[in-house]
Parts: sequence; C-alpha cells; structure tokens
Amino acid sequence: MNPKTIAFDADDTLWHNEPYFDEAQAKFAALFQDYASHQEILQLILSHQVKNLPLYGFGIKAFTLSMIDSALEVTNSKIDGKGIEKIIQIGKELLQKPVELLPEIETVLESLKGKHKLIVATKGDLKDQHRKLHDSKIGHYFHHIEVMSDKKELDYQKMLQRLDCKPEDFLMIGNSLKSDVLPVLNIGGHAIHVPYHTTWEYEKIDFEVVHPNFYSVSAINQVLDLI
Amino acid sequence: MNPKTIAFDADDTLWHNEPYFDEAQAKFAALFQDYASHQEILQLILSHQVKNLPLYGFGIKAFTLSMIDSALEVTNSKIDGKGIEKIIQIGKELLQKPVELLPEIETVLESLKGKHKLIVATKGDLKDQHRKLHDSKIGHYFHHIEVMSDKKELDYQKMLQRLDCKPEDFLMIGNSLKSDVLPVLNIGGHAIHVPYHTTWEYEKIDFEVVHPNFYSVSAINQVLDLI
Repeated sequence: MNPKTIAFDADDTLWHNEPYFDEAQAKFAALFQDYASHQEILQLILSHQVKNLPLYGFGIKAFTLSMIDSALEVTNSKIDGKGIEKIIQIGKELLQKPVELLPEIETVLESLKGKHKLIVATKGDLKDQHRKLHDSKIGHYFHHIEVMSDKKELDYQKMLQRLDCKPEDFLMIGNSLKSDVLPVLNIGGHAIHVPYHTTWEYEKIDFEVVHPNFYSVSAINQVLDLI
Repeated sequence: MNPKTIAFDADDTLWHNEPYFDEAQAKFAALFQDYASHQEILQLILSHQVKNLPLYGFGIKAFTLSMIDSALEVTNSKIDGKGIEKIIQIGKELLQKPVELLPEIETVLESLKGKHKLIVATKGDLKDQHRKLHDSKIGHYFHHIEVMSDKKELDYQKMLQRLDCKPEDFLMIGNSLKSDVLPVLNIGGHAIHVPYHTTWEYEKIDFEVVHPNFYSVSAINQVLDLI
C-alpha cells in the first residue's frame, strides 16, 4: 500500500475524546437522578442526538442542545433556569478540555511526513476541532483539516474530489468502523481500524468487516508496517 | 482582473439570510417583552454571541445557545422549561427556512463557470450551510464549499494554501466589508463588495475602504464587468 493521501480521524484516533463525553453525560445524569437511571438518561440523550442529527449535525453544540431536549423531556418541561445553566456549563466545559494525544501519535506522523499528504478528517464542531488541532501542537504535520458534516460515502467522495485524489490512492485511519472504515472501503479506498477502548453507541456496528483493502491494528504505530 | 479562483460568500450574497435572523430575534424579543425592550434584547443577544464566539463560533446552534444565555440573564434565571422549549423551537425553525436566491445569482454563475474555479466561502454551521447549498440547487456551479470557522486573514491564508492559489489570483465576493473584503485585501487578494440591504451588527465597520484591489458594486451582475 502506497497511499498518496492519508487521512487521520481526530477524536479517539489522534487524541482522547469519548471519556470526556462519558464524564459530561455522568454529570448530566447526576443532575436528573431523581427522574431516571443513569442508563435511561444515556439512552434519552442518544435518542435526542439521533433525532437532531439532520438539523444539528455532530459536535458539542449539538450535544448540548440535545442534553437540553433530554432535560425538558425527563422533567416534563419542569426544569428551571438554574438547571439549564448547569447543562450549558457542562457543554462549555467540554469545549475547553485539554487535548491529550494518544500514545505514539507523534512517532507515526514524524515517520510519515513528507512521504504522503497527511490530513485530518473529522466530524464535530468546526471551531472546536480547529481549536483542538491547534492545542494538540501536531497541526504542522498536516496539510489541512477537513471537518466533515458527516462521514458517509458521498462525504468522502466530495472530499476526494476536492483533494484531487483517486480513492485507490487514499487511506483512512480511524477508530470507527462505521464512519472511518466502511464508507471508505465502499468507495474504493483503503482503511485501517485502530480501536479505541470505548466507542460512542452511535458508532457501533454489529458485524465483522472483511475486505481486501481493510486492515485492523491494535496500536497506531503498527500502521507503519502496513503503509 | 482575471482571478483563477473566485469565492462567493453565502449568506446575504447568494441567498437571503439576515431577514430570517431578524425575524427570529423579533420572536425571541416578543417572548421577553415584559423584561426588556426589543432594542435591549437585541443588544443582549449580540453581547452573548460575541462572548460565546471563542467557544461556539458562528452559526445557528451558537445563536440558539446565545439566545438561551440571554433568556437566563434577562429573567435572572427564572425562565421555565416551556420558555426554553420556545427558544429551541426558534432555532430549529431557522435551520429549516427555505433557501431563496438573490436576484441574478444564476446568471452570474452561468457566465463565470468553466472560466474560473468557483467556490463558496462562508461562516456558519457546517451542516446548515451544506443543507442550504444543496437546497439552493446551485451547488453544481461550485467546485466545493468552504465552511470557515472564522474569516480572518489567517483563515483565508490557510484556505488559499489548501486551494494551492496565490492571493493575487483570488477574488472574494461578499456583502461584509469586515469578513469578505478587509482580510482578503490584507493578504493580497481582490475583493468585491455587494452590499445587502441589512447587515448584522457584528459585521459593521465604521470607516471607508480604499484599496487598489477593492471594488464595490450595487448589484451582483455588475461583477461581470469587473472580472
């Protein structure tokens, strides 16, 4: 495999992310523990996130608004202003979390730089992802960051067209089989899955991926043996 | 002027936008007319928008969250769940407004296509701007859409680098002197201002622009005489 362009997913591929969301959801669930169990509240937030996706897309602002929708539902709109303030605060804290790189990321980027066009391809809030790439101090390894409104086949096709890159010259590396692997394989690209220890419910799939252009590694530095 | 790449701002350049925000703010102000005047409420929303910019960036989700902050402030956190629901609804309605092209846009794009690389360069929510470009039915004229987290010098420089375009080969067309004109002139590009009948307070500047690379026209079809 000698890809011209290599795209890295950001959240839970370059840096830790899901644990911050888990922590935020735990804080939210604690606020409403008199109304529903932790598990019920997680389900409620997810259902609002999925329902709001067509309008809000991904990212922390959408998550904050979905937490508010969830709070309105679980309290039957009885929540008061102070409660809403606490939810907004949970969202604002998420937007200011430190960026912690995953192990070996810099070693991998250092080894690949100059040999391939490296980009970041991520969902989420535009401003927030730009902020995180800046704070990560690894921005200089990348040609640019693509914040995508979704990671479906068509989104990847549009991105590759813009990059003037054929699918067979493209490799995507990420922790989500649903978003980083399947759509890329479906349009003729290559994909390497690097699992993260926890996965957002929405990104889970319940079947195995078998494909000639697909690889799975347990640690990011193993991608160097494949490329 | 023979620019290789021509970027069009989206909101209030390609399609109507600010009147929808004015309408949304009027609805919001009516909800809280017992607490403050229409003008005071507009000022309050703007102050929260500006305060939230570093975390939220631009777009309707940020606007919705800033309306909620404003409602909490104006009611001294006494707002109830029903009030919050109404605010969220105002935001969701904004995200579903029909896309109405400004006059002559298609004539202009038809005349420029094939001769220059045409792109859309806009702030706002990623998902929302993609939705509007899709609904506008003029997406096929553009190589792609750049949703920018801000429109400062550095944002334009990064975009041009990505487009592999020199500033002197770049023309930006838009309705905001602050966002579409000044930063582009400052990095060596060309800019045409096409004023819209109403301007968001945040985008207003209080001086005149005089620059050899700057043009102002009163209607979009006049750009064809300049290019």
